[in-house]
Amino acid sequence: MLLSRRAQRLTSSVIREILKVTEQPDVISFAGGLPSPQTFPTEHIRAACDRLLTNDPSASVQYGPTEGYTPLREWIAALHRDRGADVSAEQVLVTTGSQQALDLLGKALCEPGRPTLVESPTYLGAVQALSLSEPEFVAVANDSEGPDPAELARLAVPTTSFFYLIPNFQNPTGRLIGPARRKELMRAAAARDLLLVEDDPYGQLSYSGASLPSLLSLDPGHVVHISSFSKILAPGLRVGYVIAPEALTRKLVQAKQAADLHTPSFTQRIVHEIVKDGFLDQHVPKIRELYAQRCQVMLDALARHLPASAQWNRPQGGMFIWVHLPPHIDAEELLQHAVKAKVAFVPGSSFYVSNPVASTMRLSFVTVSPEKIEEGVARLGRLIKERLFP
Amino acid sequence: MLLSRRAQRLTSSVIREILKVTEQPDVISFAGGLPSPQTFPTEHIRAACDRLLTNDPSASVQYGPTEGYTPLREWIAALHRDRGADVSAEQVLVTTGSQQALDLLGKALCEPGRPTLVESPTYLGAVQALSLSEPEFVAVANDSEGPDPAELARLAVPTTSFFYLIPNFQNPTGRLIGPARRKELMRAAAARDLLLVEDDPYGQLSYSGASLPSLLSLDPGHVVHISSFSKILAPGLRVGYVIAPEALTRKLVQAKQAADLHTPSFTQRIVHEIVKDGFLDQHVPKIRELYAQRCQVMLDALARHLPASAQWNRPQGGMFIWVHLPPHIDAEELLQHAVKAKVAFVPGSSFYVSNPVASTMRLSFVTVSPEKIEEGVARLGRLIKERLFP
Repeated sequence: MLLSRRAQRLTSSVIREILKVTEQPDVISFAGGLPSPQTFPTEHIRAACDRLLTNDPSASVQYGPTEGYTPLREWIAALHRDRGADVSAEQVLVTTGSQQALDLLGKALCEPGRPTLVESPTYLGAVQALSLSEPEFVAVANDSEGPDPAELARLAVPTTSFFYLIPNFQNPTGRLIGPARRKELMRAAAARDLLLVEDDPYGQLSYSGASLPSLLSLDPGHVVHISSFSKILAPGLRVGYVIAPEALTRKLVQAKQAADLHTPSFTQRIVHEIVKDGFLDQHVPKIRELYAQRCQVMLDALARHLPASAQWNRPQGGMFIWVHLPPHIDAEELLQHAVKAKVAFVPGSSFYVSNPVASTMRLSFVTVSPEKIEEGVARLGRLIKERLFP
Repeated sequence: MLLSRRAQRLTSSVIREILKVTEQPDVISFAGGLPSPQTFPTEHIRAACDRLLTNDPSASVQYGPTEGYTPLREWIAALHRDRGADVSAEQVLVTTGSQQALDLLGKALCEPGRPTLVESPTYLGAVQALSLSEPEFVAVANDSEGPDPAELARLAVPTTSFFYLIPNFQNPTGRLIGPARRKELMRAAAARDLLLVEDDPYGQLSYSGASLPSLLSLDPGHVVHISSFSKILAPGLRVGYVIAPEALTRKLVQAKQAADLHTPSFTQRIVHEIVKDGFLDQHVPKIRELYAQRCQVMLDALARHLPASAQWNRPQGGMFIWVHLPPHIDAEELLQHAVKAKVAFVPGSSFYVSNPVASTMRLSFVTVSPEKIEEGVARLGRLIKERLFP
């Protein structure tokens, strides 16, 4: 068995390895990226299955078009038009989770040696998916507002495949890019004719319900938009989508056909059956409320238990808080002790393609009860203080 | 937008293009590769959804392990052990249709310039999936028994990624490789330490119910086995699997994680819920009976309407008949006229990686009623005879 070069370099996600360790029920885990199962509308899913298999049983489980189930594509296009983006259903490709959109973009646009720009830190799963196309990853420096537009303009070259970013409540940092910075980034992209890949799994999870214009709505000719139903319905359905300029969508469809023919007809139809009559308008506010509460519990616990030299953001949405520990604390080393103390998180160093900051960590609060959040953060606080004042 | 080299060479499947033309209800289409919707156990699927969403609702739609739903992996391993293959659940990876297994194998084992051996003709979708890894395709010559083992031994070199073949009721030819030829092929593979990729979507569709030993059961160390539930349950669930030597399975799991995290938890659990208590033992014989009847109707019609100089096989299972027209008839040209006469098929030339035989065609009979099979073959017969005796 002679592995390909890229397969030799493949590794399993650090996060998934940590998750295996922390699967025991007595571990308080802030390491996951899973949505809270409390938010899954399982009764609506059951009713949707029932209707589909009563009214249109064969088509619901027969092969379907690679592009996706037409009414779902139309629904997605209409949603984005409502949000001010000038897009048509022909630009929408339904994918097997938004993760697959990254794999397809890698196949269509990345190539060994060609630069691909990413945030620093960035979503690990995107790096994994794109790595199979062996691009040269280049990190764009961030300030607290988001990626630096001047740096973006400096780093973009004619062979750059694209700049990958998560404007809303980023994984791992929870950071939201504000309206002015969005426009500056789009101006820099347009000036260099650079494609931006806007990954938006968390955009609907704004705690206030307010939302900012998508990059797609600002300049659809320079933006590929990726999103999914994983965080607002249920991730185990694996229904995501990508919206791209039409010529690129056609290539992505060809790559998708080779990859898995199409996303399951059945799960696509379930999603459409649930969302078509406005269900999300009542459902998503409940998720926002739950996550906002838990976020506040964690922020309060961090203020109580972490030393004054630690810093963290106050997310306005999403699932993550990003902590800067005192600079000489190595979060990977801390994790070893944390696991023994039955609490887990993801060391921030996993999220960098270069120059990792070892004293950072990502905390997820959405699947943990308020009592356990308090207890878990207290344990972390003790471990950190032991390291500061041994 | 700068496309990657491989994306520039991507094209859409010829078959899917033909299918678009033939979607009008008045066309008699022998072009499809779809199973008959009559065979979908939609009432069982409905009941399974209901049980899953009542008994274990959250886990059924939450993220799951990349490897697949453990009870389904165990069921698949037990099935293959019952068929004489010494395999464990750790070797099984559940995929989003068996098509995805081909994409993952390409990523793990193929590389620009490295040879990949295929049958001649072979399954077009496999060529599409593997093409993204830019291998050098090499066709192994066939006789009526299957690929020539001496030719296989001659063509295999140390850098060959694998030999891809469909031993049971091949797509496109419907050919079954007999027991002696299987052993000869495995001997040739073992002698060269060559990996064989055994794609087996149709193995259960033997009209007599008899089955031959899988290549996997003959030599699990030299075989990757791919199969799916698409032809025995329903393709729109997109549940397939790959069984490989453990070290390779681990690499395929990493590639799968990057590709789509995992196959939908929900469709995997539906499949498991249906198959776990022996449902297929009663269900699959009904599919065999339907397909055997329709195959016979088409064979009778071919004998009645095609000229004596045309030849075709008598399949013992599966979904396809392969026709050799008189040598000077070009099936692609014939198709243009056939579509006007409201009958369609797939020209055989699409299925070759080199030296296409232009006078061949693939006919699928499983979704067409007996009356329409008779009428469609009669139309084809007239068109062919017009070309022979203009």
